[in-house]
Amino acid sequence: MLENSERTELSSLGEFGLIKHLTQFIELKNESTIKGVGDDAAVIDYKGKQTVISTDMLVEGVHFDLTYVPLKHLGYKSVMVNLSDIYAMNATPKQITVSVAMSNRFSVEAMEELYAGMMLACEKHKVDIVGGDTTTNKAGLIISITAIGEANSEDLVYRTGAKEGDLLCVSGDLGGAYVGLQLLEREKRIFLETPNVQPDLEGNDYIIERQLKPEARKDIPPLLKELEVKPTAMIDISDGLASEILHLATQSNVGCNLYEDKIPIDPQTYNMAREFNLDPTVCALSGGEDYELLFTIPQEDFLKVKANPNISIIGHITNSKDGVNLITKGGSSTPLTAQGWDALLNKD
Amino acid sequence: MLENSERTELSSLGEFGLIKHLTQFIELKNESTIKGVGDDAAVIDYKGKQTVISTDMLVEGVHFDLTYVPLKHLGYKSVMVNLSDIYAMNATPKQITVSVAMSNRFSVEAMEELYAGMMLACEKHKVDIVGGDTTTNKAGLIISITAIGEANSEDLVYRTGAKEGDLLCVSGDLGGAYVGLQLLEREKRIFLETPNVQPDLEGNDYIIERQLKPEARKDIPPLLKELEVKPTAMIDISDGLASEILHLATQSNVGCNLYEDKIPIDPQTYNMAREFNLDPTVCALSGGEDYELLFTIPQEDFLKVKANPNISIIGHITNSKDGVNLITKGGSSTPLTAQGWDALLNKD
Repeated sequence: MLENSERTELSSLGEFGLIKHLTQFIELKNESTIKGVGDDAAVIDYKGKQTVISTDMLVEGVHFDLTYVPLKHLGYKSVMVNLSDIYAMNATPKQITVSVAMSNRFSVEAMEELYAGMMLACEKHKVDIVGGDTTTNKAGLIISITAIGEANSEDLVYRTGAKEGDLLCVSGDLGGAYVGLQLLEREKRIFLETPNVQPDLEGNDYIIERQLKPEARKDIPPLLKELEVKPTAMIDISDGLASEILHLATQSNVGCNLYEDKIPIDPQTYNMAREFNLDPTVCALSGGEDYELLFTIPQEDFLKVKANPNISIIGHITNSKDGVNLITKGGSSTPLTAQGWDALLNKD
Repeated sequence: MLENSERTELSSLGEFGLIKHLTQFIELKNESTIKGVGDDAAVIDYKGKQTVISTDMLVEGVHFDLTYVPLKHLGYKSVMVNLSDIYAMNATPKQITVSVAMSNRFSVEAMEELYAGMMLACEKHKVDIVGGDTTTNKAGLIISITAIGEANSEDLVYRTGAKEGDLLCVSGDLGGAYVGLQLLEREKRIFLETPNVQPDLEGNDYIIERQLKPEARKDIPPLLKELEVKPTAMIDISDGLASEILHLATQSNVGCNLYEDKIPIDPQTYNMAREFNLDPTVCALSGGEDYELLFTIPQEDFLKVKANPNISIIGHITNSKDGVNLITKGGSSTPLTAQGWDALLNKD
């Protein structure tokens, strides 16, 4: 074991040295990747399939807090966030480009950790890192990733195809990432006040993992294909269920009834929300970062999905003039609004 | 005219409002763009051509200084930098994605300026903006752009194909962007010391424009096709001629002789370099940001390019064991090294 952890300054490698160092273990996994890192551009050949492109930027102090997010997890999550968008098109991610701006407070070892997390995510989803840019920043860490995927045009699912009568479905469960974040922030506050107290995260692995190590739902597009269900519209849940339903409804020009009692919430999420005096439904509606897939399917496909443990039917599509409503457990109907995190945090 | 220039806070629109506002005038120009902004991902169909992808990040305080770079120029340049990489593959750029992180000191109007510059660049190169991400940053402005292009596989030119005996060529002229930057920085210092003095930029439009409004060499790939010349290797000049020659030589596993007296330098660049007590050759070698194309061609194509005003033959490829050398005006040979800006700035 090392007595002191090693630290290599970024400046000792220089930009090209750093890129070479970080990308040396990249092994290309996809036949479509003709040329990866090392030229002016990457070259990709999909042989007649359509290309799908998505991009996301993560900013220190806005999207993550390095006092409780390990760099490896951050790298992993930053890739997952992008892959999730590709799955939400019912497509398969194949390549990513990675741009990173960082201040000198980061060492080469820190960047290796970040890249290790990215490469682990890519490994799991058989995705190639084909390019990127590495630059300095005055303060903080910024990660910008672009994901590229492929699909047959007939398989692609847009946000615009939901029809009146369709069923509204969601994969997995919701609210966990947000409640996990509350827990991490509470333990950070305690740690800052009394540094000797160890964080109390025991028994909460699931919600912590939902926040720190989300998994893009790679399994859902092939599952739907196997069930012979083609969604009419699909979106991934990054900003919270309410916000995403409103996007789908607006872009498909439809209304929607969402049933509170159908929203899937894990018991760990439910209990921890209660501990924070938060309404578990509100956490699911506005928490975000769950990276589950929200989609609509034709009503006649009801039997194909109803018993599937990975999918919950949570509502149905109505006429646009009926608006987007939450049908509460008590049976009353209230218009759904997108609050986002700010509203949640300022609720008291 | 407005008595006070208007300022709309970014927070008044929110993220989705801002995206909608900035992207409302985007008109898709390419048949290959199936779906642009507005879904989880963009969809692109190249019908059998190969896809080329490149990404670059520009950071305030590192790559640009907003005290002398107007936001519209910055938007324009940030797109050009990326398109240049696509042309350097001998490919045609077709789409870009744009991610921007900015602090609250920027207004909606400022972002409109930035986007106006980006859209102007896209208009000029017939490129579609198909997606992106907009987020807040604690301090400063960061722009991350990914460019996507297409090419027939037989037309693509990599950095790896230069052969012994090939001629080394470059488009346009070099060093102007660096000297232009020196001039802008001098005027900034004078302005900071005596704010009433107007900047003295007269008669230096060319070098100022080389720095603030570079043009990616869209014309070179079709020109070469017309001349029936296929480069054996190509790279764009972002970090300076010396650095790019070293990249080409390393990646093609060859050596190179570069002739100082053949390096194309505009008279305005030459004179201003002298005014700053800088060696014009060093400005061309290490200045960077010229976004010209550096390429190698077979010796038998000499007659096809020799009289072309857009192309200078500046050297030839040698065996790798001979190394990469600068043949000075005096006739002596010295190994070429990549110094970059830092070395230039610290030369005194």
